[in-house]
Amino acid sequence: MNIAIDVFGGDNAPLAVLQGCAMAREEYQDIHIILTGEREKIKKAARAATIDLADFEICQAPSVILPEEDPFEIRRSRADSSMAVGLSLLAQGKADAFISGGSTAALTVGASLIVKRIRGIKRAALAPVLPSEKGPFMLIDAGANLDCRSDMLLQFAIMGSIYAERVLGIEQPRVGLANVGAEPNKGTGELQEAFGLIQKSKYCHFVGNIEARDLPMGVCDVLVSDGISGNMILKTMEGMGSFFVDSLKEMFMSNRKGKIAAALLLDSIKELKKKMDYTEYGGGVLMGVSRPVIKAHGSSNAKAFKNAIRQARLCVKNRVIKEIIESIGGIHSKNE
Amino acid sequence: MNIAIDVFGGDNAPLAVLQGCAMAREEYQDIHIILTGEREKIKKAARAATIDLADFEICQAPSVILPEEDPFEIRRSRADSSMAVGLSLLAQGKADAFISGGSTAALTVGASLIVKRIRGIKRAALAPVLPSEKGPFMLIDAGANLDCRSDMLLQFAIMGSIYAERVLGIEQPRVGLANVGAEPNKGTGELQEAFGLIQKSKYCHFVGNIEARDLPMGVCDVLVSDGISGNMILKTMEGMGSFFVDSLKEMFMSNRKGKIAAALLLDSIKELKKKMDYTEYGGGVLMGVSRPVIKAHGSSNAKAFKNAIRQARLCVKNRVIKEIIESIGGIHSKNE
Repeated sequence: MNIAIDVFGGDNAPLAVLQGCAMAREEYQDIHIILTGEREKIKKAARAATIDLADFEICQAPSVILPEEDPFEIRRSRADSSMAVGLSLLAQGKADAFISGGSTAALTVGASLIVKRIRGIKRAALAPVLPSEKGPFMLIDAGANLDCRSDMLLQFAIMGSIYAERVLGIEQPRVGLANVGAEPNKGTGELQEAFGLIQKSKYCHFVGNIEARDLPMGVCDVLVSDGISGNMILKTMEGMGSFFVDSLKEMFMSNRKGKIAAALLLDSIKELKKKMDYTEYGGGVLMGVSRPVIKAHGSSNAKAFKNAIRQARLCVKNRVIKEIIESIGGIHSKNE
Repeated sequence: MNIAIDVFGGDNAPLAVLQGCAMAREEYQDIHIILTGEREKIKKAARAATIDLADFEICQAPSVILPEEDPFEIRRSRADSSMAVGLSLLAQGKADAFISGGSTAALTVGASLIVKRIRGIKRAALAPVLPSEKGPFMLIDAGANLDCRSDMLLQFAIMGSIYAERVLGIEQPRVGLANVGAEPNKGTGELQEAFGLIQKSKYCHFVGNIEARDLPMGVCDVLVSDGISGNMILKTMEGMGSFFVDSLKEMFMSNRKGKIAAALLLDSIKELKKKMDYTEYGGGVLMGVSRPVIKAHGSSNAKAFKNAIRQARLCVKNRVIKEIIESIGGIHSKNE
């Protein structure tokens, strides 16, 4: 299969992207990687880091779309950007999946305009995979849609379920709805309606409303949310995570006693770090787009890009999109 | 001044409430405490814990309203509950402030129906004070209102500013708006409109949109938010905080090496614990109600109740409500 990757997306691009690709090449024999970006810059960066570009295909893209630019420029002045070129490869069937660590807004707009949504899907959702005490869960939507109707939330629930089963390997994934309280009558009218729709869906194993305070304990495998609530949850988790890591660093590094303690706790620290490592499960998936598009975190390192490639590979290999099409088709033939 | 407190609100009631009252009595000479609840039960609990009830007034209230009950019962079958009786004391002017660790929903409804809102205030908001790296900040609203119009958000901004200045002692408090991105054009129409209104207000020092990931770093003193976003932020912070504390406990307690490390790090752990301690600043204030009503956290211990009393005392002493009335009056005379 062909996996395209934006070499100039993310804070650590291009180096971390190229390193991640080299790691993925070692690990997976069944993928062909297409790098999108300025050819000479890619070659120069690879040379400087002594990364062999053999087996990689380069697809020339002279510009880059930046997070501060209007995302709609991806169809206009930035149609030749590393992101737009990758999305076009996907739209033309020359790539089977695309990964970028660049502007989230541009990737969301570009995926909908260039690659298009799956027929019947009302909105594409940005769905990162987050760590919890009991393993990963998918948060869908984390900010692509500010207001979500109940029928959109139902589609998010179904798509998230399919991803959790096929890519995370969870049998009968537990689907929860982010809400301000546990009872079915909590939240706005749309949330109450979504509660009923998801509960009735044969494609979901619904565990009810979820309060954000229980998320780190791993109470669901898919958390359905409107884009604003999801964004608040995602960013608060990120912020608190960074705060802990910084607090631990300060605790262990500020003096001699701390350093001795750190040496004693080495194994536990490693374990905790692994548990909280968001890069372990790849990036955010643009669920609802007709081919796999993955948004790697802006601060992704080489390992995070490698894991995003693994994630893209599993989406393709395990036919996530095909199953979404079939399930959504199933709803439509029944309801319409 | 007279401070009324619900003896039967919260997971650790009545013991923690009575202990907190005893601590406050030692610390503040200018307060008279009125305990609301079943007189005999209060006496029995005080006797068992050898707490002297001298100087405390008891106001008889035979029942308790539970979190699982319909909050509107506070005006009906639970009009004789420890919470309803406390709110009535406040409404009648027999108390200057009221504290309860009981049902948030019942307290919110009861405060609006029994004590009433300040004239001109469109909605009362639940506003907890949360810890950050650089000191406390007020989150307003944390869940009392699911949908908030821009003019309500402006009122939250003004009320939060006044609280931060008068009770937290912050000069020119930095007011931020919880949003999905930093730019002024981010978020829903209401959020964009609120951005403009708060920016123009002479009662606020506005620092713009705030992304949730920056909150632990202490980027604002007042975070204005609609109730759903605020609830997601509050509960995610709580959940991540508990997760972190549990992880540290496991790290330090699971084996001998961990215990030695904990002994070495004692001072740093204490410091971190103090920094993250939500009980330090009291409970959530029902901002917009015509007299100070404070919602202590359900899991409050004695110290948390003592701090909620300190907080109530400062609200009264520093005339928070009076300044809100004047500021809101100022807006009205200008705009209407």
